[in-house]
Amino acid sequence: MKIVDMDFSISTKDRNQMLDITSRVRLAVEQSGITNGDVIVYCPHTTAAITINENADPDVPHDVLLTLNELIPHHRAGYRHCEGNSDAHCKSSLLGCSELVLLKNKSLNLGTWQGIFFCEFDGPRTRRVIVQIRGQ
Amino acid sequence: MKIVDMDFSISTKDRNQMLDITSRVRLAVEQSGITNGDVIVYCPHTTAAITINENADPDVPHDVLLTLNELIPHHRAGYRHCEGNSDAHCKSSLLGCSELVLLKNKSLNLGTWQGIFFCEFDGPRTRRVIVQIRGQ
Amino acid sequence: MKIVDMDFSISTKDRNQMLDITSRVRLAVEQSGITNGDVIVYCPHTTAAITINENADPDVPHDVLLTLNELIPHHRAGYRHCEGNSDAHCKSSLLGCSELVLLKNKSLNLGTWQGIFFCEFDGPRTRRVIVQIRGQ
Repeated sequence: MKIVDMDFSISTKDRNQMLDITSRVRLAVEQSGITNGDVIVYCPHTTAAITINENADPDVPHDVLLTLNELIPHHRAGYRHCEGNSDAHCKSSLLGCSELVLLKNKSLNLGTWQGIFFCEFDGPRTRRVIVQIRGQ
Repeated sequence: MKIVDMDFSISTKDRNQMLDITSRVRLAVEQSGITNGDVIVYCPHTTAAITINENADPDVPHDVLLTLNELIPHHRAGYRHCEGNSDAHCKSSLLGCSELVLLKNKSLNLGTWQGIFFCEFDGPRTRRVIVQIRGQ
Repeated sequence: MKIVDMDFSISTKDRNQMLDITSRVRLAVEQSGITNGDVIVYCPHTTAAITINENADPDVPHDVLLTLNELIPHHRAGYRHCEGNSDAHCKSSLLGCSELVLLKNKSLNLGTWQGIFFCEFDGPRTRRVIVQIRGQ
């Protein structure tokens, strides 16, 4: 069992954005030298998230963000947190701050249409993504 | 540390359906020969999800699907994705495409009322579930 | 590779409550003697969840719960589950019953503002949290 920790930075451009980081995770996996096991993609921020969804058609992330923004608008009567980003904290907990991907024969074992996204909900900002690769 | 990869197919019958796959996962665990560790149940599709919830009363999955359908109706003004299943992609990211279950003394360490569900949001379809069992 | 299983009990005071359990998880990690790897925080209940979010300002959990309660009110026309806690089951699946945290140099590798919360959605109750620490 081998454990390799890596991380990388990304820059987001909008307040709400889904950024495809699949190739960055794939690169980390290649550098780790691990063949079989799993990969944790972890977001150390509380106003962002990691999700897996279709990355072939950019309309999919558009529609996911549209839905999240309609369900959880920027402002809501009753919010107490003074930074004005309570919506971002809510979205972060709903999507979750990590995803787990299996690793098989040195490749990410994603489905045909699956890509890994960093979800920005309080950008633009510079953010960090942690990747832990575990296996043999 | 031993890693065993398995997968199985399921057929869903409705557009939205929660299918209890606990016994299928339990069978994979038994076949793996692993005693202690954990199990990843992974859905390689972007219009479906994996969740853990009560599987004793079928009214629970009914009410979870009812809630999801009211929050995220099939059609929403502004959707761009031309396949007409943007709602399914949203539900997939909200519930997530994997769950992790602990393995103790050759058994799934689920709570008394917990079962593992495959959540179909764009069926009926034939779907694949990947199970990775890791441990000693 | 070493696997250590622990658990602890907590008591919630409200029907909906986010309880910071970071120090309890940290204590389990210290007792495990494991230096690098990961920690699974698992909730064996179907009307509760685990999430990671900001624990510096108590207004953040307040606003997350406010949003969840407005999206998923206690009662909804069409609910069939006779226990009157269908909303709690929905929230449980949306937030998820586990979180995974990386472990580095004997410490939880959380972001600056991240804490681990047990989310009660059908309290007050006595609940159990399972922690599995894995690594070297």
